[in-house]
Amino acid sequence: MSDLDLQEFNVGIDLALEAKELAESAGNGPIPGVMSEVSEDDGIKITRLDVTTEEGSRIMGKMIGHYVTFEVPELRKQDTGLQDRVATKLAQEFADFLDRIGIGKTANVLIVGLGNWNVTPDALGPIVVENALVTRHFFELMPNEVAPGYRNVSAVAPGVLGITGIESSDIVQGIVDRSKPDLIIAIDALASKALERVNTTIQIADTGIHPGSGIGNKRRGLTQEILGVPVVAIGVPTVLYASTIVSNSIDLLREHLKKHAGNSSQSDGFMGLLDSIDENERLQLVREALGPLGHDLLVTPKEIDQFIEDIANIVASGLNAALHEAVDKSNVAAYTH
Amino acid sequence: MSDLDLQEFNVGIDLALEAKELAESAGNGPIPGVMSEVSEDDGIKITRLDVTTEEGSRIMGKMIGHYVTFEVPELRKQDTGLQDRVATKLAQEFADFLDRIGIGKTANVLIVGLGNWNVTPDALGPIVVENALVTRHFFELMPNEVAPGYRNVSAVAPGVLGITGIESSDIVQGIVDRSKPDLIIAIDALASKALERVNTTIQIADTGIHPGSGIGNKRRGLTQEILGVPVVAIGVPTVLYASTIVSNSIDLLREHLKKHAGNSSQSDGFMGLLDSIDENERLQLVREALGPLGHDLLVTPKEIDQFIEDIANIVASGLNAALHEAVDKSNVAAYTH
Amino acid sequence: MSDLDLQEFNVGIDLALEAKELAESAGNGPIPGVMSEVSEDDGIKITRLDVTTEEGSRIMGKMIGHYVTFEVPELRKQDTGLQDRVATKLAQEFADFLDRIGIGKTANVLIVGLGNWNVTPDALGPIVVENALVTRHFFELMPNEVAPGYRNVSAVAPGVLGITGIESSDIVQGIVDRSKPDLIIAIDALASKALERVNTTIQIADTGIHPGSGIGNKRRGLTQEILGVPVVAIGVPTVLYASTIVSNSIDLLREHLKKHAGNSSQSDGFMGLLDSIDENERLQLVREALGPLGHDLLVTPKEIDQFIEDIANIVASGLNAALHEAVDKSNVAAYTH
Amino acid sequence: MSDLDLQEFNVGIDLALEAKELAESAGNGPIPGVMSEVSEDDGIKITRLDVTTEEGSRIMGKMIGHYVTFEVPELRKQDTGLQDRVATKLAQEFADFLDRIGIGKTANVLIVGLGNWNVTPDALGPIVVENALVTRHFFELMPNEVAPGYRNVSAVAPGVLGITGIESSDIVQGIVDRSKPDLIIAIDALASKALERVNTTIQIADTGIHPGSGIGNKRRGLTQEILGVPVVAIGVPTVLYASTIVSNSIDLLREHLKKHAGNSSQSDGFMGLLDSIDENERLQLVREALGPLGHDLLVTPKEIDQFIEDIANIVASGLNAALHEAVDKSNVAAYTH
Repeated sequence: MSDLDLQEFNVGIDLALEAKELAESAGNGPIPGVMSEVSEDDGIKITRLDVTTEEGSRIMGKMIGHYVTFEVPELRKQDTGLQDRVATKLAQEFADFLDRIGIGKTANVLIVGLGNWNVTPDALGPIVVENALVTRHFFELMPNEVAPGYRNVSAVAPGVLGITGIESSDIVQGIVDRSKPDLIIAIDALASKALERVNTTIQIADTGIHPGSGIGNKRRGLTQEILGVPVVAIGVPTVLYASTIVSNSIDLLREHLKKHAGNSSQSDGFMGLLDSIDENERLQLVREALGPLGHDLLVTPKEIDQFIEDIANIVASGLNAALHEAVDKSNVAAYTH
Repeated sequence: MSDLDLQEFNVGIDLALEAKELAESAGNGPIPGVMSEVSEDDGIKITRLDVTTEEGSRIMGKMIGHYVTFEVPELRKQDTGLQDRVATKLAQEFADFLDRIGIGKTANVLIVGLGNWNVTPDALGPIVVENALVTRHFFELMPNEVAPGYRNVSAVAPGVLGITGIESSDIVQGIVDRSKPDLIIAIDALASKALERVNTTIQIADTGIHPGSGIGNKRRGLTQEILGVPVVAIGVPTVLYASTIVSNSIDLLREHLKKHAGNSSQSDGFMGLLDSIDENERLQLVREALGPLGHDLLVTPKEIDQFIEDIANIVASGLNAALHEAVDKSNVAAYTH
Repeated sequence: MSDLDLQEFNVGIDLALEAKELAESAGNGPIPGVMSEVSEDDGIKITRLDVTTEEGSRIMGKMIGHYVTFEVPELRKQDTGLQDRVATKLAQEFADFLDRIGIGKTANVLIVGLGNWNVTPDALGPIVVENALVTRHFFELMPNEVAPGYRNVSAVAPGVLGITGIESSDIVQGIVDRSKPDLIIAIDALASKALERVNTTIQIADTGIHPGSGIGNKRRGLTQEILGVPVVAIGVPTVLYASTIVSNSIDLLREHLKKHAGNSSQSDGFMGLLDSIDENERLQLVREALGPLGHDLLVTPKEIDQFIEDIANIVASGLNAALHEAVDKSNVAAYTH
Repeated sequence: MSDLDLQEFNVGIDLALEAKELAESAGNGPIPGVMSEVSEDDGIKITRLDVTTEEGSRIMGKMIGHYVTFEVPELRKQDTGLQDRVATKLAQEFADFLDRIGIGKTANVLIVGLGNWNVTPDALGPIVVENALVTRHFFELMPNEVAPGYRNVSAVAPGVLGITGIESSDIVQGIVDRSKPDLIIAIDALASKALERVNTTIQIADTGIHPGSGIGNKRRGLTQEILGVPVVAIGVPTVLYASTIVSNSIDLLREHLKKHAGNSSQSDGFMGLLDSIDENERLQLVREALGPLGHDLLVTPKEIDQFIEDIANIVASGLNAALHEAVDKSNVAAYTH
């Protein structure tokens, strides 16, 4: 997880498709300026979603841009056949995505693996970097000998603020200044709002990575505005806040009680009581449920070691095949371990 | 976590002190046949609890035996000074515990580290084994040259059923038959009911490790009855069921609503509604909150890699100093890394 | 590496094919009672060698038995295609081997992964255990539901003497007594005499694992005599003694000088000088070359982390396909990660 | 090990004290322009060596600068008491070193951990980075709240060329441009010529890190000339070339034979023969001794996992205490794990 994650959580953590569902259920049907398309094939659901207008962006609370989400609920079952299929699909989809946003087949790419390689659920980015097929040094040192079908790719894992003392954004900008890529692909572990998404969902977006905008927030993002280069973000939820589980549970129980309360005068006071649980009371309940130390605790499934390795290999395999034409897109897994 | 954990969860996961609180709040005050004593010192709370009669055992739902629990809420803060103090206290307390249950200073000890060394939150037992000060081979190979102050200690990590295909209990019994220890100390990662206990609590008990007793359950435990040798269990909660968080939240909200509903005729139907949420509905809510795959999911804090290493070092340091008189009990941490 | 390795080094470390070459060059051609057959295919050289008589055994210094050796010099090049081919060949060869020594297709198997999972070059055995397809618990708990094509397989990593304080042989015997396998397959990392063999060679033998026979040696092996069950050993050299490199170098230089000295009276004294380097002087030279701490030092290639993972996967994949008919022997790698 | 290592090997791998010994034995006694001082205390030998003139630099083959070397032969014995003493000495010596080369107590420091965190013997730099006490973010985000006694320290692990596709030197320069440190401390694993130095020797030098100067070598170093900031290098030999062991052995045997050949006419031809082993023949012998794949093989002791962790903790502890006055220099180990 990047050192941007806490900030990001405020505004950016919602997957675009969650934001859309929310906006649609709140409003009445389709959102103007937002187009989406869903395909599903053998356990892999892909949602392509474009926010095309300021109005759509405002309603959805997501930036104008292109979003593609892979949802693969069975991905935690450690089925290597499924993993290979997801990697293959990801390669094809990512190649299309680059095409769609106007990135040419010879554009130089810098892969940025955000996160901390010593904290397993944060290690997604660094593990993808390790398994990326980098070629920039060949282009630099022996440009005439690079085989056709490979583009110029480099990859860095800048570390996290707590380890380095320097903003990832600053480190990346320094490296961009020196290595002059045409595109940045930033890989990041995310905090999710739904347990079912943890280690089962992959989101691609061309909006970069934005820190939150709270008061006093001096943090900088990884965006085209800041870095001067387009930034595609690949995010995978690998943790969730314990407090999110509690909040979701409280909401569910409220819904449940409302549904069963019926429509009598008797139920009116009851409804009032339910509705009167304001944010402070809710936070108080969450605190009680989790204890004093639990409120900010991020949790992750017990099997995280294996899950992270699996999903990092999927992302790396997909990227390698998408970025290099020479890599066989029909059997992408052979290129990583 | 041992391969006993799921079964154990049914009857054995509750820490004795949780069971006591529950029983006391359900009944009216002290439980006959249960004695307890609490001491607290600079952030380390130690509860010594003895279940001495069948009646006490029945009321508490815990076996007759001796239980000691360390609660150190700050243990997740990675304060090495606190860690050293806990290890030192544990050494003293564990030496007293052995004394109290009649284990002599020269009794041969076999440490059994249950769990899977490849799944971080399950790796507590194996890591303790790695850091245990074993001496049995010196006693076997050069008995006259062992320095005074050391007892005969051996240590094994039998693995988990999913990896070995053999019950831990069977593996341990085979090793006991061959190596003839006088005492087994079994280290196990537990599933907790409370997030705040995860990686902050250590329980010692002389009751061994019991699998559940569900229908068709053929699993065997690690107990004196089965192994023919006394078994002291050291357990540390390192994971919790996501469903536990949800259940706790629902309970809290029910309590909250009841407290605020007042005593009017209007609230009667409301109370009825709250009370009418039966176990099936509750399970249904939990399922909705967690999604189809989340129900049996065990979660652990994101920082589990560091937490496990810290607490395993505490347990190993404490054991080494408790078991060997030659190890300085005032500075136990120096003997592990 | 098992805790047997030092002893083993004395008598057992030589690969059978090295012993044969040595014996043949010392004698005059073929050794009576020893039959061998070599096949080579696309970088994988397989030597099948049978020692059938006491005379052959005495001359070769190897026990009567069957030996199969894979030599794959390119295996350190991290070519996943080659790795898959080796695993596939290994599966076929190992299945034939079991057939040849009379192990039936339904014999129960216990895989024993010797070595220390915390010391990378010693971790071969434990990593193979992790990746073994174990089924014994299904046969025990739901015998009627095991799919056809699977046999009863279990797997343990007993640890090393320095960690457990108990001989591996004792631990295994205890487990054998309880779990009653028909065959033991013991996986062990070996010390090699030749750097080129490190992580490139796999030896299968039906002779079990024998400790050395030096004075005062109380160590016990893993053999049919001791355990009452046939023992097939799979060994991979993963380390070599630094002193071996020095010794080899001294020998080479001697050969070189002899070859170039010519046949004059002048060279006679010179020859005498070369020949007069006795074992003590040689040891003295080795000590000087390596420094006081280096003599017993085992070294391993810098890239050992990756090499061990690769070769452990090959062995595990090969075993899984050889042991279970249901595993596709033409694409064995899919069953491990 | 940095991606500079191969080049560095040509000119820079020799520890300064080895270079001095060599130069002194080749010449006749002390080298003009080179001053050295040795102190030894309870198993820790410290050599302070200054190359002060061009002449001295030319004779020694080392750059003008200050060199401090710790030699602790017992460091591989995993004695935690000794480790703590080395860390404490290192802290004091390093603080003096910075003072001597004119680095003030408030100078901002960037620690650069060269090497690959996935290859154990190369992971020294990254592990030191993980354990460094970084503060730069506190100075940036809440400058008024930083406790006295801490200086501004940041730390990065840029990765290696094979993983990133970008020269470490370029990555570091980009980060320097953005974060403006006053001093760089570069940590690097080295290849040694002597097995006894591996994981027992620490060298500090204010000369930066220089790549080799072979034909066509476009590699860039980490030096003040390139980066515009002073660079202190801390190097620890963690690997050695197998070919070095062979070469050393051949030299030793030559010496041995010469010494014993006596002074007869007979020995003359013999001497000639020994001397006639030219570089090509020697290389040929090395190749024969190591096999086709062994020539460039870097080897490391089998116990490298533990050695690297131990020595990285020593270096990190020493740095933390040397850089921050608030860290107790008499008990430095408490600040890392």
